[in-house]
Parts: sequence; structure tokens; C-alpha cells
Amino acid sequence: MDLATATASPPPWLVTAHPEVLPVSHGGATVWPGSRQHWRPTSPVFREHALRLTRALAERYGQHPVLAAWHVSNELGCHNLFDHSDDAAAAFRAWLRSRYGDLDTLNQAWGTAFWSQHYTDWEQILTPRAAAFIPNPTQDLDFTRFSNDALLAHLRAERDLLYRLTPGIPVTTNFMVNHHTRDLDYGAWAHEVDFVSNDHYVRLDEHGRDELSFSANLTSGLAQGRPWFLMEHSTSAVNWKPVNLPKGEGQLARDSLLHVAHGADAVCFFQWRQSRAGAEKYHSAMVPHAGPDSRVFRDVVELGRVLREDLAEVVGSRRSPARAAIVFDHPSWWAVERLSLPSDEVDYHREALEWYQAFLDLGVRADIVPLDADWESYDLVVAPLLHIVPGHLADRVARYAEGGGHLVTTYFSGTVDTDDHVHPGGYPGAFRDVLGVRVEEFSPLPCGASVALDTGGSGDLWTEHTTVIGEGVETLARYGEGPLRGTPACTLRRLPGGGTASYTSTRLSAEARERFVRRLTEEAGIGSELPEPLRGRVELAVRATEETEYWFLSSRTGEPVDLAGVGGTPLTGAAALLPPDGVAVLRAERP
Amino acid sequence: MDLATATASPPPWLVTAHPEVLPVSHGGATVWPGSRQHWRPTSPVFREHALRLTRALAERYGQHPVLAAWHVSNELGCHNLFDHSDDAAAAFRAWLRSRYGDLDTLNQAWGTAFWSQHYTDWEQILTPRAAAFIPNPTQDLDFTRFSNDALLAHLRAERDLLYRLTPGIPVTTNFMVNHHTRDLDYGAWAHEVDFVSNDHYVRLDEHGRDELSFSANLTSGLAQGRPWFLMEHSTSAVNWKPVNLPKGEGQLARDSLLHVAHGADAVCFFQWRQSRAGAEKYHSAMVPHAGPDSRVFRDVVELGRVLREDLAEVVGSRRSPARAAIVFDHPSWWAVERLSLPSDEVDYHREALEWYQAFLDLGVRADIVPLDADWESYDLVVAPLLHIVPGHLADRVARYAEGGGHLVTTYFSGTVDTDDHVHPGGYPGAFRDVLGVRVEEFSPLPCGASVALDTGGSGDLWTEHTTVIGEGVETLARYGEGPLRGTPACTLRRLPGGGTASYTSTRLSAEARERFVRRLTEEAGIGSELPEPLRGRVELAVRATEETEYWFLSSRTGEPVDLAGVGGTPLTGAAALLPPDGVAVLRAERP
Amino acid sequence: MDLATATASPPPWLVTAHPEVLPVSHGGATVWPGSRQHWRPTSPVFREHALRLTRALAERYGQHPVLAAWHVSNELGCHNLFDHSDDAAAAFRAWLRSRYGDLDTLNQAWGTAFWSQHYTDWEQILTPRAAAFIPNPTQDLDFTRFSNDALLAHLRAERDLLYRLTPGIPVTTNFMVNHHTRDLDYGAWAHEVDFVSNDHYVRLDEHGRDELSFSANLTSGLAQGRPWFLMEHSTSAVNWKPVNLPKGEGQLARDSLLHVAHGADAVCFFQWRQSRAGAEKYHSAMVPHAGPDSRVFRDVVELGRVLREDLAEVVGSRRSPARAAIVFDHPSWWAVERLSLPSDEVDYHREALEWYQAFLDLGVRADIVPLDADWESYDLVVAPLLHIVPGHLADRVARYAEGGGHLVTTYFSGTVDTDDHVHPGGYPGAFRDVLGVRVEEFSPLPCGASVALDTGGSGDLWTEHTTVIGEGVETLARYGEGPLRGTPACTLRRLPGGGTASYTSTRLSAEARERFVRRLTEEAGIGSELPEPLRGRVELAVRATEETEYWFLSSRTGEPVDLAGVGGTPLTGAAALLPPDGVAVLRAERP
Repeated sequence: MDLATATASPPPWLVTAHPEVLPVSHGGATVWPGSRQHWRPTSPVFREHALRLTRALAERYGQHPVLAAWHVSNELGCHNLFDHSDDAAAAFRAWLRSRYGDLDTLNQAWGTAFWSQHYTDWEQILTPRAAAFIPNPTQDLDFTRFSNDALLAHLRAERDLLYRLTPGIPVTTNFMVNHHTRDLDYGAWAHEVDFVSNDHYVRLDEHGRDELSFSANLTSGLAQGRPWFLMEHSTSAVNWKPVNLPKGEGQLARDSLLHVAHGADAVCFFQWRQSRAGAEKYHSAMVPHAGPDSRVFRDVVELGRVLREDLAEVVGSRRSPARAAIVFDHPSWWAVERLSLPSDEVDYHREALEWYQAFLDLGVRADIVPLDADWESYDLVVAPLLHIVPGHLADRVARYAEGGGHLVTTYFSGTVDTDDHVHPGGYPGAFRDVLGVRVEEFSPLPCGASVALDTGGSGDLWTEHTTVIGEGVETLARYGEGPLRGTPACTLRRLPGGGTASYTSTRLSAEARERFVRRLTEEAGIGSELPEPLRGRVELAVRATEETEYWFLSSRTGEPVDLAGVGGTPLTGAAALLPPDGVAVLRAERP
Repeated sequence: MDLATATASPPPWLVTAHPEVLPVSHGGATVWPGSRQHWRPTSPVFREHALRLTRALAERYGQHPVLAAWHVSNELGCHNLFDHSDDAAAAFRAWLRSRYGDLDTLNQAWGTAFWSQHYTDWEQILTPRAAAFIPNPTQDLDFTRFSNDALLAHLRAERDLLYRLTPGIPVTTNFMVNHHTRDLDYGAWAHEVDFVSNDHYVRLDEHGRDELSFSANLTSGLAQGRPWFLMEHSTSAVNWKPVNLPKGEGQLARDSLLHVAHGADAVCFFQWRQSRAGAEKYHSAMVPHAGPDSRVFRDVVELGRVLREDLAEVVGSRRSPARAAIVFDHPSWWAVERLSLPSDEVDYHREALEWYQAFLDLGVRADIVPLDADWESYDLVVAPLLHIVPGHLADRVARYAEGGGHLVTTYFSGTVDTDDHVHPGGYPGAFRDVLGVRVEEFSPLPCGASVALDTGGSGDLWTEHTTVIGEGVETLARYGEGPLRGTPACTLRRLPGGGTASYTSTRLSAEARERFVRRLTEEAGIGSELPEPLRGRVELAVRATEETEYWFLSSRTGEPVDLAGVGGTPLTGAAALLPPDGVAVLRAERP
Repeated sequence: MDLATATASPPPWLVTAHPEVLPVSHGGATVWPGSRQHWRPTSPVFREHALRLTRALAERYGQHPVLAAWHVSNELGCHNLFDHSDDAAAAFRAWLRSRYGDLDTLNQAWGTAFWSQHYTDWEQILTPRAAAFIPNPTQDLDFTRFSNDALLAHLRAERDLLYRLTPGIPVTTNFMVNHHTRDLDYGAWAHEVDFVSNDHYVRLDEHGRDELSFSANLTSGLAQGRPWFLMEHSTSAVNWKPVNLPKGEGQLARDSLLHVAHGADAVCFFQWRQSRAGAEKYHSAMVPHAGPDSRVFRDVVELGRVLREDLAEVVGSRRSPARAAIVFDHPSWWAVERLSLPSDEVDYHREALEWYQAFLDLGVRADIVPLDADWESYDLVVAPLLHIVPGHLADRVARYAEGGGHLVTTYFSGTVDTDDHVHPGGYPGAFRDVLGVRVEEFSPLPCGASVALDTGGSGDLWTEHTTVIGEGVETLARYGEGPLRGTPACTLRRLPGGGTASYTSTRLSAEARERFVRRLTEEAGIGSELPEPLRGRVELAVRATEETEYWFLSSRTGEPVDLAGVGGTPLTGAAALLPPDGVAVLRAERP
């Protein structure tokens, strides 16, 4: 049993006795109790009580034979990440003192000369509450960093107490790796847990299945390829969207097995028995309101059988690396979706997902990895919207390409340093030299506008008037219309060491992106492992032990997977998973 | 004269001396004075001053010969229904103690085991202020009940003082029976006044005229068929919509007479002389800014003549019951339009109105009645979205159908008990047995989506995979496409006692709904009282005394009503009301 | 050098020491520091510190040889116009005492009999904070007047101190004359500065260029035709819109010269060197992030050369008046875009701009002038939406038309007096007699609806059933459909003195408006000064000294201007500005 520390939602007696644990909103209003997560991450009072409870649980259940792991709190930061209380202000100041040492350094970093924001005493500093106009962007970015760290500190506090009380019991907390949890740096969090676990609720739109794959893939990247837990997903509908559709025929199994394909060794559901009362009573469960005589419950039971009987030997196998990778950097995500940027429409997650989909369309595996992973081991690396680039990262990126790697990046990358100061001399700033291109001005496009490329497809969201400044730069696509007609949209620079450095100054349409990725994979010498007819329709994920490889073939469309021409031997029972589930698992001895 | 107690809007001196009477918003902000209704329903200070004023008025004018009735406050709850002040919290706790007796019962009812919301002291309980995520739904529902009761208590306090001071003078308050006043339980309020009165402002959209009819009909239902007052409506435009259109030619009379048709014995306007200043100076009046030399004033004068001369004998007649009824339950309306339900798009009032329109389309009269009325006396009863169903109500409904009644209900009915706990075992819960159908999961449709039915027409908003579990169930329509293709959309169960119990699991289009209602009226043996050419184009309402029936024929389109083939004798002068007014009143001796 | 007083953004130490300078929002929340303009206009504490800083700057730099002018604060009222603090409430009361003298007068003016808002003590009066429903409209209007005056008082306080300390140095403050700064009465402000200066950021939509011309023209009107400063505009993109597009090829020069054409003698940019950090780092600059090797910087340098070399002799010349004028009245703008009016869709600035565009389409010059200018000197005056009309203004308008002037006004004009009390007897109230028309009811149109006129084109937004009541009224266009079919949409009354008074009761489409304006210019005997082929495509502005006229011909489309047929001699070098810049400047001796 994975036992949670039960500190996620303070009980009424605690907030009545200590209303000073309640968070304060951006506008300065109290966040009232009555739901969940109504606690300040930095409250000393809350911390004391949370640790008291954690201690009590550990002392009571620490020796219980079924205790397999501790689960700190629940979905940390889902609602209480940004707190503007006095506790938060005090902790923010302490965090800033630690980061900057002295006020001169902070004033320089925050650019406080602008709008007369110069601080002369630490006590003058507040969290960025609702102001009359645009906030200071570095203050705002630091507040996100601080808020992330404050929750991490809570995680560490509970974890370290558990380590002392129940040594040897691993500790996790459930991440929310998905398309909307932006402001937590899970790349850093992954180092603080004994094993990664994730909650994932599939999107209902046409990209939902690819997003599930993307999130599972990234979770595996955060876990550095080791197995991880799917701590929560749903058997069918959730209850917190405007309209909550149930899952279709076979989707419960397909969704579950795609997480397994990407490394999950546990697949858990919220919730066991559908509650008759309370805020989530219309959230699906393993046993629905209708009771055990229901398709959902039968599907759950069958999934248990499949995992236990058919896929038992897969447990413990690790993700088998692809040759291409997409670098996903939460802090750059934070940074490109703030106020007062060239365009409010920049969408970091969508950009990353669309690169992933281009690989899926070609039938080429790509791993999603955090910035601090060893992405240099990949032959081809796409780092979209890599916006925050301190000098050492610029060097690292250049070394990769100059050392024979194939690097791709995009518009609004390389733009600022860690303090959110723009790299001068022309965009893309820190990457200008390695890419061999220079841009004087950003030219975002109005919502709904797009511009055709001369090679087919189009770009939207953003364009740039790109000038080639380096040796060996080939223009792969040009703008075909508008004020930038004839100027480069996509470039590839061939570097002396055999590597390449490529750039696109626009958000590519699916057609244009696939064309670009096809060329890049050719440069890197990466082909599809799938037979031609399956490419694009079926996603391949590979897990492996030392002796055996497991090929997970998952239909992107829900249609059956035709195994003709696919290598490997069908795993025992795997064939039963094919139609209508659209997932097949094959076993092959490792070469 | 109907004299108001003048307590609706506290004067500046009062809120300056007693700022503690000002309401507090959901987010915790003070509701400032400067408009109207800036008072806490539960404020002891406000109550004291309101009763002082009421007493002073009663003592000064109680013996005045023109005093016909008292009118408590004005549009109670229009703006100040939900108050989150400390007064409200204290009163809410007292209300809860009275409802639940002890905390264990409350904790059970509210399902506080979920999210650690267990209360150990009454003082811990607050009103559901803005929290981090979804509120506790039973707390929220109880807060609506409490808020409704708090205003009712205010009504009773003024009323009872008036009864003591001026015995024999009837007391009313003006309801707001319409499509947007959801959270007041007028079914309960109707028992607290000596006669029902209503304010009604016609909608500008294509369903506006039917909605007026619906509201007037429901007001008559609340008044249990007795005459009632139309306390306010407008001669022409209002001023509080984004765009305020004037009434067209003849509409002043048509609107007024449709209220009369449904039982109004007084038709009053807000306001007499259009004010030159203040917040409603662009609200139309009997004497507009333009003065008496105006179409509006002439229309008002002519309406007065018609009511006084042509329709004098109608006064005091009562609504003549239809054979079909639609049950309208405000608490179910509250319950199906809350947070964290399967779909945010459920629209109780629209669902009820569309059933009413199906009857209008067929030319069959239907009464709208509250849940506590004697709807068992009708041959056919439609109870749409009857969501909150305690056991005794389930029994009552079953007895009706088993006793020969023809019952119809819809998706999301029978779902929960009074505590908002889901009836387990499959939907529609409390009605599963009598309807003979069972549903495992709700399948709401995305906004804008619809699904064709095999019999013509379509459904939108909601679908369900319905399984027939009872004897004698006939499937009237099936889904014609999508994942539920071929499964029942509309069913009818024939019961041994000659009654039927019908169900639809989707929101029917007009075509599909008319087909369904046509079949139901055939089952119940109810035909149209109108000649064929008038059905659908003309609405019929009937008022009667012991000797005489008055048939009000109102054009739904504004076109003239052709009386050929309609029985009865035109009332004196009524023929003059035909073109272009589209209303005719006929007199017939009762059989 | 124009030196700013640096009081626009209080530093952290000040707001830490004196949090009582922070503004309070409409909802009662504190406006926090961290951005700019976080100060209460009425705070005595802030005023004291602002004057201390102003004094220190004046004492230090007052004798500096490059000091050309003082610039008080920055964009006064951009964010802090409406403050609901206790300081504001106290100052509002003092302002009201001064305006009304006694409470009876105030109660009468505010119409406090409505909704029991009668004040019995000055201390009861608050600013119009967030209330339960519609605020008192006269209180709200007075609060706008007061808020405007409070900032003016701040301007005067700094200015008067500067006058004492550095006599002879002129003082200005940068206005924000544009389409969204509604609630400052720049007509009054213009009298308080030694020379007018303006900040203008061009709109990105299809009307952006005409709006720039309109704003520059109005700024010239505020400056009473004297030269003024363009204190801020941008070389390219801004950073505070949702999507920030850069300027296209040549636009920097075209935008700048259009301001010059309308009287600017200085054309400044925000900002010099594009900041690397801070809230506006993505706002364009003279030296962009890319550095001096950039198109933007080269364009700035070239603009400097053109102004210094080619257009030097234009400096100091004044606007040469047109024969037609559009009266622009900020208080009427305030008044027609408030709550609880017949339509929320009334758009004062758009209405005025569309009249201006009709003149541009015909190639006829029109000046935009404030209400207190000497507009009687024009032959044709359009005063759209002139809503607030006290008796003396009604007399002034009537005298103009009766004295031979050609007057045009529109729907919702003449409606109220200074207290926002409706002029009784029928709309357009104060103008009914001079126009010879009477309207009983406003008939706004739903969003998106329009009604055809019998002469071509259409109207939207608003219609009225207009009755002709005066002698000599000709109907120029009638409604061609709908309930008002056949009634007048546009009228012209011929007055005995040779003047005319015209009215339109709808918002005219471009086609209908051009037809109307063509007729009006014919009545007034005003023709285009442009050769036929240039009319509509090219805008003409004329500046003049005593001896010389300068004709600025600016392409509205960005296309080259063909000078064939235009009189005068190209100014030295100016011809070079034509293609692709689309601006030409010609010199002619004055006749």
C-alpha cells in the first residue's frame, strides 16, 4: 500500500484555530476553506501541524506489513501554488536574500531602474500582488521559482521526517504532468522522490491521445527511464470540466496500457467506489454508482487480469531510449507565457506536443526529456521555445551541435538569461552564432492568421525576418507571401563536426513540420522502426530488460493494429488485446 | 392602493450609522451602498430598523380608506440573496442546528469524510465563501436553502407585524417568476402571502412570448389557480439589458392580456411617470419622457378602458384546469445547475419551457404547477429534471403512474436524495423501477453537438446508454448514430393500472419532442380544444366562474386570430382586440 | 531637454513608509505596488512627497542650459484615475460641497428620491464603490468629473511650484488622446499647460491610420491650432497588446509625418535604447535589442534628417483651419458609455471617427475641435452624440444654425442636462426645436442587426421613430424595412437665416454617411481641395505661416501619392518621401 500523509486538506478545526494558515489571493483576498488545499505553503503553523500528522501516521503504520511507500500530501500545488500572504512575503524575502545576497544584485537582476522600483531595504519587497499595470517580469518569474521551491520545501520536510521514522520505505508524491500544470518544475522535483508518480486525466479533444502519450513519455523522462507509478487516472468521466464525457468502448484499457508502454509499473485509479456525496461524486470510479454490474467495473477487473497475467514479466523493465529527443523545460514554459511579451498566444506545451506529433506521424520514436537530462546522448534533439538560456546552457547547446549532434530550436528561443534580461545584438540571442541566423524584430501574427511557406504548409502565431549570418546555412523553407515573402522560415546549418543546427521562426503547420522533421531525421540517419503501413497510425514504445525487449504498439486512432510485418513474437496473451483495444505487446530477445 | 413597506433600500443615514448591515460577497468583499438592496437578510440591526419603518407606515396609513393591501419590501432577493457576512454565518449555523440537530448528522449529510471536511464544532462552519476549488455541494445546496429561508423569515417578520397592526389587510410581496430567478423557492413562498403577485419583464428573444405565457401559467400554479396580481411589467423597453428594445405595435396590450388570460386580476406597470434622473430613467413608463402625447400613454389608457369596460366580468374568475401539467420544482432547478456536475450546460428552465412549447405546438393546454401542488389530479404529468427525490417523493410518483396516471420524466431525474446523495444502483435512481430502465453512466454531449434519433429529430446536451429492465417497456425512439446507436432514447412503460411511465435520456429537439408529446397525449386521451387551423399558432387559456367560461385566444406570432370554428360568444368589445393585437376573449356558458 | 518631474511611480521606500498612498479599487481592494502609478491622486501624503521631489529637481536642474521645458508626471490617470480610498471619499465630498453648496441641491441633482438614496449629512457620501446593482448615474458622472479634476489639481500643484522656482520655463504633461482614454476631459486640461503634448500608439486594425489622423487632428484642436509635441510614439511594436505587431516598411516615417502634418513640432519616441529588463523590454525603441545595425535605427536616423533638413522651415507653422469641423466632447463620451442606458453598444469615439472618415472619403478637410473651441467659425459643424446639453449650450447651438451655420447631430444627442436629467417632451430634447423633429422612444438595434435605408446603405446600433414637427424639414433618407419602414432616418431643416440643422437617428453605414456628408458639404458650399483622383485615397492637412502654406498629402492606403494636378512646389527633399512612404509635402505662397 502507498499510504498518503493526509496533509493535503486541513480540517475545519485547524483553520478555525489558525486562520493564519489560509492563503491570500493575487488580489489580496483570503482563500476560504470549504474545498481543499487551503493552506499557505510557507505557513510555519501549517508546517508544524502537517508534520505532527505525518509523525502520527508514521508511528502508527510505519511497521505495518503492507506499507510499500509513502505518498506525501496530494497533487501539491494544484490550487495553492501562488500565495500572497504575509508568510509568503517573508519567505519570499528570505529566498531572495539567499539567491541574490545583497540588494544591489537584486536591483540589477530585476531591472528596478525602470518605473522607479529600486529597493533600499529587504522589507520593502512584496510578492507581486495585483497592481495597476504590468508587474516586474523578473520579480514575477522569481516568485514562480520561489513558489515552486516553497512546495518542494514542504515535500522535503515531510519526506525527511518519514526517512527518519521509517527508514527504507520509499517516498513519492503525485506529480501532475499534463498540458495545464505549468508552474511546477518537475525536472527538479524528480530528484527529490524515490520514485516518480503521476496523475493524468486524458484530454477530450482530438489531440487527447497524443497528449497522454506525451505526458507518459515525459514522466518517463523525469524518472530517467526507470519505471514509475501512474498514481491516478480515471476509469471514465471526470467531474471538473464544463462537460464531462465518459470514456468510450475499450478506452479504459488503451489509456492504461499506453502509460504502461511508457514505463508505468503501477496503474491506479481515482476513485475506488464512486462516492455518493461530496465534490467529486460524479467522478468515475472502479465501482460506479451503478455498482459492480457495470461495464466500467468489468473493464477494471479485466485490466487487472491483463496486467497480472499477460504483462507480468514486463514489470521492472525500463524505457528503451529512442534516438531522437524533445527537450522539455518547465521554466521556459513559465517564461514564454507571461504578461507583456510580443504575443500572449505563445503556447509552450502545444509547440512541444506538435513536434512530438510530427515524430509520431513519421513513425519515429522520440523521448521527451527534461533539460537537466543527458540529452547529448541523442542523435537528434528538438528544444522548442528554449527561452531562458544562461551562458553555460548556450555553451552546452553549441558543444552538442559542434560535436556532431543534430539540434533544432525555434522562435523565441535563446532570448534571455536567467534574470530574464534579453541577450543583445539580435535574436535568437544566445543561439544566434550556432544557428547562423539573426533577427532584428519579432513579428507575431494576429490570432487566426497564417502565412504560406514556399515548400507547402504554413506557419502561424509568429514570424521573423531572418537574416543568414553564418557559414553553411541552408534555407529549408521560405515565407511564400506577406511582408516576409522570400525570407527564410526554416534554416539548417551544417557544422564542421558533422552536426547540424536548425531553426524555425514560425509555428509550423502539421504538413510543414512533418517535412522539416523528415529532413532532420534524414540528416541524423534515423529511420522508422515500424513497417511502412503502420507509421503514423500506430505509436511504438519500447521497454526492455537486459534480455528482452517489449514492443508496445498502440493505435493512435483506436483502430486495430495489424501486426503483419512487425518484428518480434507476440507476447503470451497479447493478441487478445488487439481489437477493439488497439494495443499490442510484442516480445523480442535483445540482439 | 397596494402600499409597499419601503424597506427594500436602506437609506444612507442607516448604512452610515450601521455599516454592519451591508452584505458581504462570495469573495469576501463588502457590498457597498449606492444602488439598492444593500442589506443582509439576517442582520438583526437591519431587521429592527425595517420593522420600525413598517410599524410607522402601518400606524400612519393603516386606517386610510384606499389601503387595499400591503406589499412587503420589493423583489426580495433580487440582489441580496447570497450574503457571506458574519451575521449570515451565525444564522446559517442556527439554521443547520435546527435542520440536523447534531454534528454527526450534518457530517453524514454533507459527506465531510471527503477532503477532510469533518466538523467537530458548530462554530467551525462557514458559508461557502470563495475557496480554492469545488465547494462541498451539500453545503452549497443547504446555503441556498438557508438563504431562501432567511428572506422568507424577513417576509414573515414584516407580515406578522402588519397582521397585528392592521388586521384584515392582505399582505403580498412581488415575486420574480421568470427564467433567471432560480434560487428562490416560490413554491414555499406562495404559502406565506395572502395573494400571489409577480413582476415579469418579457424576454426579447424568439421564445419571449412563450416564456411570458410559461411564467404567467406558473404564477397561476403557485396561486393554486386563484387570481393574482401582475405587480410590475413594462409598457415598453427596460434599461438593464445590454440592449433595450421597445415593445412593438400592440405588444403592450398583448403582453398584458396574456397575464390576464392566466389569472391576473391586476396589471400594473413600473413606472408611472418616467423619471428624469436616477438609475432607471431609461426604463419605460406609463407616461414617458415624451409626455402624454405619445403612443405608449395612449396604449396604457386604452388598456385601462379594455380592462374596465370589456373584461370587467372576467375579474375574480379562476384558472380552469388543463388535463396535462408540467411540474416545476425550484430546488431541482438549483441542484442541476451547480458546479462539478456531469455537464455545466444543463438548463432546467429551458427544459421545462420546451415541454410547454411542445404542448403549445399541439394546441393542448398544460398547466405549470409546483411540486407541492395536487398534480395527481392531472391525467398527464411531465416532471422534467426532477433531480432531488427523497423516498416519499419517489413513492408518490410511482403511486401516480401505478394508479393510472401518465408520467414523463427525463435525464438527470431521480438522481439524488434530499442530502444530494446519489441513489445507488444505476440511474435514474429513485425512478429506475417505475420507468423500467437503468443507466450505468451519464454521457453528456459537447456544446453544439447533437445526435439524430431514428424516428426523426435529434437530441443534444445529454445522452445515456439506457438498458430496459422492466416489464412492458416500449422504445419510442432510438439513437440513430454515434456510440449509442440503436439504444433507447425515449421509452414508455405501460403499467398494469392503465398508466404509463415515460423517459427520455436526451434533450429532445422540437420535432422529436412534439412527436413524443403527441404520443403521450394519445395515451392519456387528451385532445386539443382548438380547431385544427389554430393549433400551434394560438394559445388557449381558460378562466371560469361557476357559470361562465372565458376563452383567451392569444396569437403566438402576433398575427390575427381567426375565430371561425371556435365556440363561444365574443365578449363585449373583445373582437376589437383581434387584429393587430392577436388576442381574443370568448364567453361560453359552462356545460 | 524636456525634463519630467519623476513623480509618476512612487518608489518602494515611500509606499512602505506610507501605504496610505496606495489606491483602492472599485471593489474595495488595495492596488498594490510593483508596477507604476500606484498612488491616490488625492493623497496629501503623496502630494507632499511629489512636491518635495519636484522642488529638488527644480532646484538642481532649474538653471541647466538645456532645460527647455518641464513635463509633469507621466500619462496622468492612465491607471489611477478612479480611486475609492478614504482620501478619495473625503476629497469627493469637498468637491461636491463646492459644486452644490448644500445637500438639498445635491439630492435634487442626483435624483436621490429614487431607491431611497437621500443624503442627510455630507459624511454619508461615498465614491460609487461596487454595489449590488446599477449605481446612481449622476453620482457616477460626478465621480468621473471629480476624478478628472483631482488629477488636474495634481498637475496644477506641480506646475505652480515649478512656475515659482523656474519662472519662464514652460510646463506640459503628456496627454493620451486616443480611442480608449475616455474619462479625462482634455478640453479642460489644454488650458492648464503651456503647450500641449501627446502620446499616441497607432491601432493595428484597418482604421488605425485614420484614427492616428483623428487623434493628431484633435490634439491640434486642443492646442487651438498652435504647434504641439508628439511626446511619445513607437518606432515599431509595443508590448502591452495581446499580440504586438511591428510596424511595416516605411510606417515609422509615415506615422511620424502625419503627426507633423497636424501640427506636431516635435516627434519623440518611447524609448531610446530598448531595455534588456523590466516590464517594457519588448517595447520597440530607437536603438533596438539588435543594436544600431538595424532597420529601425536607420529609419530613426533618416527621420531625424528629414525633419532637420527637409522640413525645417515648417517648424512653428500653425494648422490652417478647414471649413468643416467635428465637435468632440469628452464629457458626452463619458455619459453615453455608462451603465443602464438604452444600449451598451454606443461607441462615442467610433461615431466621431466615422464622421471624420466620411470627410476623408470625400477629400474634404475637417478639423476636430473640443466643445469649448470657437466652432462657430466653421461653415459646417458635426456634433455627434452631443449628449449632455445644458440650456446655454442648446442656445449656442441654435444660434449657430439660425445664424447661417450648418449643424449636424445624431441620435442620443441633446438628451440630458448637466445633472444627467432628461430633457422632457420628447427626444432629442434640447435640440428638438432647432432640428424640427421629435422622438417618443429610443429603438436601439440588437448587436449585429442593421436596417436598410431607402437611399442605399444602412444603419445599425440605434434607430428612432422620428416625427417631423418643424417647418422646412426635408427627409434625406428613410428606413427601408422593419417596424420603422418609411419613417425618417436622416433629416435636414432649412432655417430662415440660410443655415441648416440636420439629424440622423441611426449609426450610418459608410455608404449612407458619405451620401449624407456630400449633401451637407453641398449645402455649406464646401468642396474638396484635392484633385478628383486623390480624393479618398489621400489625406490633406495644411499648416501655414503668414507667408507660406505647407500641404501635407498623406496616403491613407500606404500607396504612392501621384502629385499630378496638385498645386504648389515640392519642399526640398520631400519628394523623396513619396514612394514607398506615401507622404508628400508641398509649399505654396499664401494667396
